[in-house]
Amino acid sequence: MALKIERVNTGVIGFDNKIEGGLFKGSINFLTGKTGTGKTSFCSSFLYAGAKKGERGLYITTEEREEDIKNDIKAMFDWDIDGLEEKGLLKFVSLRPELPMKTVSGEEVAKVVKLYMYDLISKIEDAVKNHKAERVVVDSVSLVEIFIKDDYLRKIALMQFVDRLKELGVTAILTGAIPEGVKSLSSSGLIEFLTDSVILLDFVPIAEQFKRTVTIRKMRRTDHSVLIHPFDITDKGIKIIEIKEE
Amino acid sequence: MALKIERVNTGVIGFDNKIEGGLFKGSINFLTGKTGTGKTSFCSSFLYAGAKKGERGLYITTEEREEDIKNDIKAMFDWDIDGLEEKGLLKFVSLRPELPMKTVSGEEVAKVVKLYMYDLISKIEDAVKNHKAERVVVDSVSLVEIFIKDDYLRKIALMQFVDRLKELGVTAILTGAIPEGVKSLSSSGLIEFLTDSVILLDFVPIAEQFKRTVTIRKMRRTDHSVLIHPFDITDKGIKIIEIKEE
Amino acid sequence: MALKIERVNTGVIGFDNKIEGGLFKGSINFLTGKTGTGKTSFCSSFLYAGAKKGERGLYITTEEREEDIKNDIKAMFDWDIDGLEEKGLLKFVSLRPELPMKTVSGEEVAKVVKLYMYDLISKIEDAVKNHKAERVVVDSVSLVEIFIKDDYLRKIALMQFVDRLKELGVTAILTGAIPEGVKSLSSSGLIEFLTDSVILLDFVPIAEQFKRTVTIRKMRRTDHSVLIHPFDITDKGIKIIEIKEE
Amino acid sequence: MALKIERVNTGVIGFDNKIEGGLFKGSINFLTGKTGTGKTSFCSSFLYAGAKKGERGLYITTEEREEDIKNDIKAMFDWDIDGLEEKGLLKFVSLRPELPMKTVSGEEVAKVVKLYMYDLISKIEDAVKNHKAERVVVDSVSLVEIFIKDDYLRKIALMQFVDRLKELGVTAILTGAIPEGVKSLSSSGLIEFLTDSVILLDFVPIAEQFKRTVTIRKMRRTDHSVLIHPFDITDKGIKIIEIKEE
Amino acid sequence: MALKIERVNTGVIGFDNKIEGGLFKGSINFLTGKTGTGKTSFCSSFLYAGAKKGERGLYITTEEREEDIKNDIKAMFDWDIDGLEEKGLLKFVSLRPELPMKTVSGEEVAKVVKLYMYDLISKIEDAVKNHKAERVVVDSVSLVEIFIKDDYLRKIALMQFVDRLKELGVTAILTGAIPEGVKSLSSSGLIEFLTDSVILLDFVPIAEQFKRTVTIRKMRRTDHSVLIHPFDITDKGIKIIEIKEE
Amino acid sequence: MALKIERVNTGVIGFDNKIEGGLFKGSINFLTGKTGTGKTSFCSSFLYAGAKKGERGLYITTEEREEDIKNDIKAMFDWDIDGLEEKGLLKFVSLRPELPMKTVSGEEVAKVVKLYMYDLISKIEDAVKNHKAERVVVDSVSLVEIFIKDDYLRKIALMQFVDRLKELGVTAILTGAIPEGVKSLSSSGLIEFLTDSVILLDFVPIAEQFKRTVTIRKMRRTDHSVLIHPFDITDKGIKIIEIKEE
Repeated sequence: MALKIERVNTGVIGFDNKIEGGLFKGSINFLTGKTGTGKTSFCSSFLYAGAKKGERGLYITTEEREEDIKNDIKAMFDWDIDGLEEKGLLKFVSLRPELPMKTVSGEEVAKVVKLYMYDLISKIEDAVKNHKAERVVVDSVSLVEIFIKDDYLRKIALMQFVDRLKELGVTAILTGAIPEGVKSLSSSGLIEFLTDSVILLDFVPIAEQFKRTVTIRKMRRTDHSVLIHPFDITDKGIKIIEIKEE
Repeated sequence: MALKIERVNTGVIGFDNKIEGGLFKGSINFLTGKTGTGKTSFCSSFLYAGAKKGERGLYITTEEREEDIKNDIKAMFDWDIDGLEEKGLLKFVSLRPELPMKTVSGEEVAKVVKLYMYDLISKIEDAVKNHKAERVVVDSVSLVEIFIKDDYLRKIALMQFVDRLKELGVTAILTGAIPEGVKSLSSSGLIEFLTDSVILLDFVPIAEQFKRTVTIRKMRRTDHSVLIHPFDITDKGIKIIEIKEE
Repeated sequence: MALKIERVNTGVIGFDNKIEGGLFKGSINFLTGKTGTGKTSFCSSFLYAGAKKGERGLYITTEEREEDIKNDIKAMFDWDIDGLEEKGLLKFVSLRPELPMKTVSGEEVAKVVKLYMYDLISKIEDAVKNHKAERVVVDSVSLVEIFIKDDYLRKIALMQFVDRLKELGVTAILTGAIPEGVKSLSSSGLIEFLTDSVILLDFVPIAEQFKRTVTIRKMRRTDHSVLIHPFDITDKGIKIIEIKEE
Repeated sequence: MALKIERVNTGVIGFDNKIEGGLFKGSINFLTGKTGTGKTSFCSSFLYAGAKKGERGLYITTEEREEDIKNDIKAMFDWDIDGLEEKGLLKFVSLRPELPMKTVSGEEVAKVVKLYMYDLISKIEDAVKNHKAERVVVDSVSLVEIFIKDDYLRKIALMQFVDRLKELGVTAILTGAIPEGVKSLSSSGLIEFLTDSVILLDFVPIAEQFKRTVTIRKMRRTDHSVLIHPFDITDKGIKIIEIKEE
Repeated sequence: MALKIERVNTGVIGFDNKIEGGLFKGSINFLTGKTGTGKTSFCSSFLYAGAKKGERGLYITTEEREEDIKNDIKAMFDWDIDGLEEKGLLKFVSLRPELPMKTVSGEEVAKVVKLYMYDLISKIEDAVKNHKAERVVVDSVSLVEIFIKDDYLRKIALMQFVDRLKELGVTAILTGAIPEGVKSLSSSGLIEFLTDSVILLDFVPIAEQFKRTVTIRKMRRTDHSVLIHPFDITDKGIKIIEIKEE
Repeated sequence: MALKIERVNTGVIGFDNKIEGGLFKGSINFLTGKTGTGKTSFCSSFLYAGAKKGERGLYITTEEREEDIKNDIKAMFDWDIDGLEEKGLLKFVSLRPELPMKTVSGEEVAKVVKLYMYDLISKIEDAVKNHKAERVVVDSVSLVEIFIKDDYLRKIALMQFVDRLKELGVTAILTGAIPEGVKSLSSSGLIEFLTDSVILLDFVPIAEQFKRTVTIRKMRRTDHSVLIHPFDITDKGIKIIEIKEE
């Protein structure tokens, strides 16, 4: 390869060696899957792996409360989240939209909604700069995906959203949401074309039980695994179950 | 695990040991399935299990009459519903919307509808506080799910709905409705991303008969079973049929 | 079971013993299926079984002429329909909407349509009271299901429709219509959640022929069969073909 | 059976003995299928069988020119169409709508369209009375089915259409059209619920060839075959290929 | 058969003997299939077969430039297209709509569009008369099919389009376009009911390769093959691969 | 073949011999596939193969930044992109639309959008002429495909887009985007009918891994392979894996 690629490890045990050492530095990655497939676990592994090496991480949630996300992670893993947070290596920020009040007119609702979306990216930029973050998680972008109805304008808006993240120089994971029974990769059907990678988590029924898997559907600048990898969530972190390559 | 999780038993026989002892305290859980899959049975088991331990339970129905729900439960199970109700350990509240009269204009209809939805959550809050409930069932949230047409606003409204329940500190089960022949987990395709768990009931044709099953599709802060569990409805309560793990 | 349930036999030969003796008294039941699956046969069995015991039955048709429904039944079964009608034990009432005339404006059409729907339930109530009916068939509710376009308002309207029937104290069967090639249980995808039972008739291709079957998809307050039962239409009535349980 | 049913033979060789001798007199039958499945052959057999017995038949086409339909039939079968027409036993009438001219405004288009549909039934009534027809074919009703957009009004309009034919006392076949790849029985998904029978023609791929079949999906007042019958189109008429019943 | 049918050969090697010698004279035929299935090859065979016998042919393209279609054909087949064109036996005419300019208002766009469609048929009539064509190809009618949004008006417009071609007395092939992954026979789902035949070309994956096939789905006045025929495109023309009939 | 076709090699190793030596000179080709199937690799091979022979190539990206596309290519292949760019044999141009600012009204948004689309083709023409390009890649046309909502106008707009490229005399590859789980060949379902070829890339699950494949679904003026060809992305370029023809 003509270009030297700097890699950022994901912290997912057994995963980095399947993507030449990690996500490429400065890449905007899309982590997607149905509900309950392990997206929060994956994202927190990514930030935790950085924090352990002294790289500051920022977890932006657009749908949860900060304490809820933190407790979800603490309940899963034997990690010292509070300690890392105190050292400034981890930060959780909730940027949720407000539901317009019942006395507000339809026109004003549209305005409030529009402002939130235009301001969200500014707030993310501010948070990144204030926290001097190198790794960023935006969990999730599905509100951003459904915010504009027109396919054409929506695609342009998503292009700009990805661009501004890219200009910040951070390595980012955006999470998406795939409704049950739908075969698309995202709510918009658009964002997966704009990001540098698409990592798909799944929870598939096999005989009488379900199994979690991860598949790399795209990863630019990377000679990546094309296998479907089953994984376990252990209290040390997510762990890929090694299968023999055919 | 770094975080100590307090558990709330479901009363479903053979189920709690598959979810580390029960739902996590303060969680908002989503119980979903097609019609006739046993949602009312599951919800009443949850409240009955609490009442037997002295934890006050509140059953809010948005679609039935109080006496109908109560009689449905009495007809199924050998439980002393009336006695528990007299002791204040169980309470049934019907919060149904009214159909606007035929003389009302379209604009006024919209207003009446909007008010109902904004008031529903206040009425739930009042009922929880008045009854000092620790366990709450909202059966069902499907009217809430279809109330707003716009995907973006609907998701925000559902976020707020879940949030305000969470702030009440109760452990809650919300029920959903999946139309026959549809593979989604809910009417909105949105609420399952916002709740702490998704418990799916099903009624599936196998050869010449149907079988009821329960599957945990997601449960935060919990190392849960990934099996598809068949179950029976007996007069003692719902009972998971043990299958051998592979 | 804590609650004593009074049962109303269906007259379908070999069916009542699969539902603890019959539909529960005062229940609102939903009988659904594709065209040609035997809904009229099932409904007339229900009324005929009552009439033979002296229970007055009312057959409301919203789509046919009274004489057509009566002749369809007479052509199928060796029953003395005219005699029972003379004794006042059976009554057929056609409550069909009128198509607005071609000179009427769109606005007036909407008004006429709205009035029909609001009046239908009143007319059903009048017919039940005048005839002192204990058993009621409404064949079909599919016009009611498609009358309102908005999902939210439609569900509320259907809730009220079912409620007012329930308040009459009758045991009722409502019939639905499933278009060919559709996997839902009704036109609205809503009414099946509101009724006390869902009984599904089907006409399924097996090898080079078709077979009629009945399945109970839901029946509140009842420990019902979960088998798919094939049945025949004989001149004595509908007859379940007994199959060996596995 | 309590009711004596008069039968009208279809002329399809080997078919009448599968439906107790024929369609019931005065019935409105729906013959449906994809393009090229043999609907015109079936309809002309029905009229030809009557004409041979002296029963006057009327073929109304809403989409073709009279001479085209006549030539299609003449090309297929060794029948003396012209002779029967001269004797007044057969009559072909084309009742096609006109496309509004390019200079006409949108509002006027709507008016012209509406008038055509309201007048079509009057013209059919006139043609039946003038020709003293006992058997009527309306090929096809798919324009009638798609004329009204609103599901509710459309169903009412179709109810009236079927009713007025019924009041004429004729035995009628209405043809429908099923687009390729669609599993419904008609364009509207509604008319099959309103007619006395549904006869489905199909053209199905088996291995490397296609096979024509006929199935009776519904036939009121008739103990009909439930087999899928393959058939051939011969110059004597359509001929059911006998298969052994299982 | 009572009617003597004059046949027009298609020039597709091994095909005419499967349709009693050819398309019937004066018929309007619909040739449809996904992109890349060989529609242009089939159409040009039809015109070339006529030209060789002295019958004048007209190739109307609504989507390509004349020189492009001509070069496509020349590249495929060892035929003297230029020579036949000079003798007046073949003619290529491009009748493409213009995209309204960016300065034009929405209302004017609608007008320009409407005029094109009303004029297209006139231009085809002029071309047929000027060229004294006996065989006509219109490649494709898919713009005509999607021009009107309303199902009812669209069907009437298509009826008129087919009618006016029929009145010209020519034998015509209209080509359609089936989008990938769609099971319909045309863009409109309507035109296949109005033409005298439907000839379906396909390109189907079998194991690790694709195979071209032709199937006759309908052909009025013709006892046609019901087999699925694979074919090759050779420099002499399209050639059906003979398969053994079962 | 009567017409001598000049060929333009694709540079994809082992591919040109499957299409008679290459794309035909002056053709507009459509390269389509889901995200992550290798479209950028294919396009850059095409330009690189030309540049090595002294044919000037132009890479127009409508969705990425110039440096990102260049780095993606450099990371994959051992090619001297910078050197070729300095010699003027390769050029990368980003022509992305701007998202209208939040203060702009809806009407102005529509105007800005419309202008971008009308100007895009002019800008492409300018870039081709200024760079004297013989080979052009437009990656991607999916924004062009979704820009107009009306099917009819959209098809005309796409016809003009393809035409103006054709008039430039270049050999071009346009890339499309197929959303996951969709079986169409493009976003519009239209453009594949207008281009000279359709080359489909795929990434298909086989057992526990994914495999990249290329299939030629259409190629005018070319006797092309009909096999599904698996391929590898190596640091020398894309390489077809030879499979034995059956």
